[in-house]
Amino acid sequence: MFKKIAIFGVGLIGGSFALALKKAGVVQHVVGVGRTAATLARARELGIVDTITTSVAEAVQGAELVLVAAPVAQTETILATIALHLQPGTVVSDAGSTKSDVVTAARKVLGDKIAQFVPAHPIAGRELNGPDAALADLYVGKKVVLTPLPENAAADVERVAQAWQQCGALIHQLTPQDHDSVFASVSHLPHLLAYALVDDIAAKPHADVLFQYAASGFRDFTRIAGSSPEMWRDISLANQPALLNELDAYITQLTKMRALLAAGDGKSLEQIYANAQQARHAWMRAIEAAESPSKQGGD
Amino acid sequence: MFKKIAIFGVGLIGGSFALALKKAGVVQHVVGVGRTAATLARARELGIVDTITTSVAEAVQGAELVLVAAPVAQTETILATIALHLQPGTVVSDAGSTKSDVVTAARKVLGDKIAQFVPAHPIAGRELNGPDAALADLYVGKKVVLTPLPENAAADVERVAQAWQQCGALIHQLTPQDHDSVFASVSHLPHLLAYALVDDIAAKPHADVLFQYAASGFRDFTRIAGSSPEMWRDISLANQPALLNELDAYITQLTKMRALLAAGDGKSLEQIYANAQQARHAWMRAIEAAESPSKQGGD
Repeated sequence: MFKKIAIFGVGLIGGSFALALKKAGVVQHVVGVGRTAATLARARELGIVDTITTSVAEAVQGAELVLVAAPVAQTETILATIALHLQPGTVVSDAGSTKSDVVTAARKVLGDKIAQFVPAHPIAGRELNGPDAALADLYVGKKVVLTPLPENAAADVERVAQAWQQCGALIHQLTPQDHDSVFASVSHLPHLLAYALVDDIAAKPHADVLFQYAASGFRDFTRIAGSSPEMWRDISLANQPALLNELDAYITQLTKMRALLAAGDGKSLEQIYANAQQARHAWMRAIEAAESPSKQGGD
Repeated sequence: MFKKIAIFGVGLIGGSFALALKKAGVVQHVVGVGRTAATLARARELGIVDTITTSVAEAVQGAELVLVAAPVAQTETILATIALHLQPGTVVSDAGSTKSDVVTAARKVLGDKIAQFVPAHPIAGRELNGPDAALADLYVGKKVVLTPLPENAAADVERVAQAWQQCGALIHQLTPQDHDSVFASVSHLPHLLAYALVDDIAAKPHADVLFQYAASGFRDFTRIAGSSPEMWRDISLANQPALLNELDAYITQLTKMRALLAAGDGKSLEQIYANAQQARHAWMRAIEAAESPSKQGGD
């Protein structure tokens, strides 16, 4: 049971965290902190938070857990203000999509309080934002990746893990570097590739004809190009080294396939297509097995 | 009303065409032709065709319309055998995903009967194949692109168009070259890109970890990498010149974006992301408007 939790940013991510903990009955008091009075008021109106404040000192005072769930570009500034008021006994966590940059920023502004910061990344989202988009069950069955620091006490990591488990999430752990490499590969690169294709097509003189014949395959391939440009600019820059590595590997792959296509080497092209098809089918089977009822076949 | 239609290949595409025409009550007799006796027998059992034969002469005799809907790699061979038996008054069409190569093959094997061939491409499909996958409403509201030849009589083009309209399809016309350029851009390139990404990831030593964290964005982006490797090998090779053009433009785009990312030029990256997001939103709005009831606002 948490007596007090402070949430910086009461939108989709922070708001859903608060609603889930309230629904689980494991928090007595949630205080919402933010820059926009109307957003804070709306969060209180919706029952996401119990009280609201613009005072960081007041918010952090006596909190067992502080979650920073504001836009990633604000993380360093928020941590710097938290550092001024942070007392022993309070654990701070975040919800950013990249972790190496957050750890660098946290070390810079938290100084010798760095042990109190446990970085985390909940893998969940919706296409909507703000307090009205928050859902108590957003994290049920979803992964939360913790990227603990060597300085963290095991009990503090466990405190963050337990809060997310109370939200219904599954806890994973990676180093910040491995986290960023993994998500550069399976999330950040695909976003860049989808944006690249749509921009490429939109820039052609006959773009209207092209879009006219685009069908369901194109729709699914480019769905993530409908995401927020500001958010993905920030993620791209925050994870620049890992994303450059993945992008270089992909350009190399395309250059290889271009040579096969130019040479009319259907056999080698088909081998790549078949490898991909098999890997994707195996992945889909694994996902479906993980999502099927765990009691299947037992009693 | 068609007295006799012959269909080469009674699977998803040819079978759905036959079922739709029968449902519309506009064909008296459909004969199915193919290489596999069991497939033909199944098509007759399902009521897709009235009679079946392995004799091309018998199938083509007296048919007003012949549809070649076998795998694309067989098109030239099938057209060559049809040519031997083709009488005036019969129009031949196809359903291939690429058109320049089909036209080249048709000119080669049909010779001075080329005027009787009207190339076409129905933009519809399912992930299933064979006669059991055929649906009478597969083409309802879907586009069929005709790519008529200068030699075609207007009445023959109209005969093919009317058959597809009876299936519920919307008729479009492009030149074979424009068709191939358009579909290289919005269909063939995205398939190659999705295969490339999944193969790239699957080849990494820590592929199992990567797939473990892949989520819904990755699932949608790579859905088309679950498609048939053989079919997409054939399409890639058949549309090689146009696909190389599109692939080169895309590699140029990625190389430009790589330079922006390496330089930390967030403003320019965001501009590309925002262009793409806006273009995709506009496209989705256009699709949704086209799919909404046409009587909206009327009575």
